Amino acid sequence: MAKKQEVSIPVIRRLPRYYRLINRLISDGAERVSSKELSERLGFTASQIRQDLNCFGGFGQQGYGYNLAALKEEIGKILGLDKKIKTIIVGAGNIGKAVGRRMDFYAEGFEIVGVFDAASEVVGKNVGGFSVKNAELMEETCLKEKVKAAIICVSDESAKKVVQTLIELGVCIFWNFTHYDIAIHNPDKNIAVENVHLNDSLMTLRYLSKDILN
Amino acid sequence: MAKKQEVSIPVIRRLPRYYRLINRLISDGAERVSSKELSERLGFTASQIRQDLNCFGGFGQQGYGYNLAALKEEIGKILGLDKKIKTIIVGAGNIGKAVGRRMDFYAEGFEIVGVFDAASEVVGKNVGGFSVKNAELMEETCLKEKVKAAIICVSDESAKKVVQTLIELGVCIFWNFTHYDIAIHNPDKNIAVENVHLNDSLMTLRYLSKDILN
Repeated sequence: MAKKQEVSIPVIRRLPRYYRLINRLISDGAERVSSKELSERLGFTASQIRQDLNCFGGFGQQGYGYNLAALKEEIGKILGLDKKIKTIIVGAGNIGKAVGRRMDFYAEGFEIVGVFDAASEVVGKNVGGFSVKNAELMEETCLKEKVKAAIICVSDESAKKVVQTLIELGVCIFWNFTHYDIAIHNPDKNIAVENVHLNDSLMTLRYLSKDILN
Repeated sequence: MAKKQEVSIPVIRRLPRYYRLINRLISDGAERVSSKELSERLGFTASQIRQDLNCFGGFGQQGYGYNLAALKEEIGKILGLDKKIKTIIVGAGNIGKAVGRRMDFYAEGFEIVGVFDAASEVVGKNVGGFSVKNAELMEETCLKEKVKAAIICVSDESAKKVVQTLIELGVCIFWNFTHYDIAIHNPDKNIAVENVHLNDSLMTLRYLSKDILN
């Protein structure tokens, strides 16, 4: 866990891919992996991989490869997966439902403690094992459970108000599926934001498609 | 549309954010925008913005700002939004449903011509105005409609087989919600892939949270 301050964002963004592959290799019964194999499976160069993993103190030995269990534990610690953050899902429409049902939050360091929606027709439905509660009950849960993270799956129009309320309630970590730019609109707040902008991803694909179709 | 070859991927990834903001400003009745205002609303520096927009030949005039309608049209053309690509959604589980219902594909240069799923209990359900069809009918639609793009919302386990089939049917553009790495496993194919890796995004957020919580 040392040397965190030296780790750049591009390295951090590659770590989940390492972590995912390492998990799969362990499930398949492997104990060690070479940087060559990591390279072939991930599409990074072997030298890139050695450089990335050396950022964290180096788990490998020339000619012997990396110990998978040690690598998994260390990357998990670097990512912070070993400590769980209390989290709510706000908005149980299509995206909220998809995310709530599909993701294994606990394995990724988040503990869901409630799912909320303002629409009465959604209240009571099951999302990932939680009965959706009325949004009016959000404040109570946030204060009681000391919720620190929220997954924002409301409409773009509702996002600003929801986020402001949550920040006042002590929430400081946002996984944001809306186009409301949480970080830019709250520059003085100590918050962490990760955006999932599906429209932007789709437009990027449209651009990349041009070369393929021509 | 000139100078495309000079446009780097980071610039391309910023373009959808410009496009989105420009659309909003036009809806609000604005006709021009300064790089200062773009900077404040997007969180990029004004000099970054001038540099980005100059990549495409420059739409601005010192002191007058940018003409929004011209900017929208030009960025739309650069992204390719004016020409629609025939597209299918494969997998109508939670992610497929959320994506199919929420996204305005047509506005982003894609024309959905069918939604498919292998599970009989999903067949016939409505996703974004389409009745989900049995996956066995996918081949027929791809050939008949000359489908070029597919949105892959199946399970990680099914992804490889689905993608191989689609490539054989002439599909070459993939919006990929699975962890199957389409590009790496098809290095010799002329394909475009954009991945939405929700797990990786969530793990990155978990990492970013560490500094906030300490």
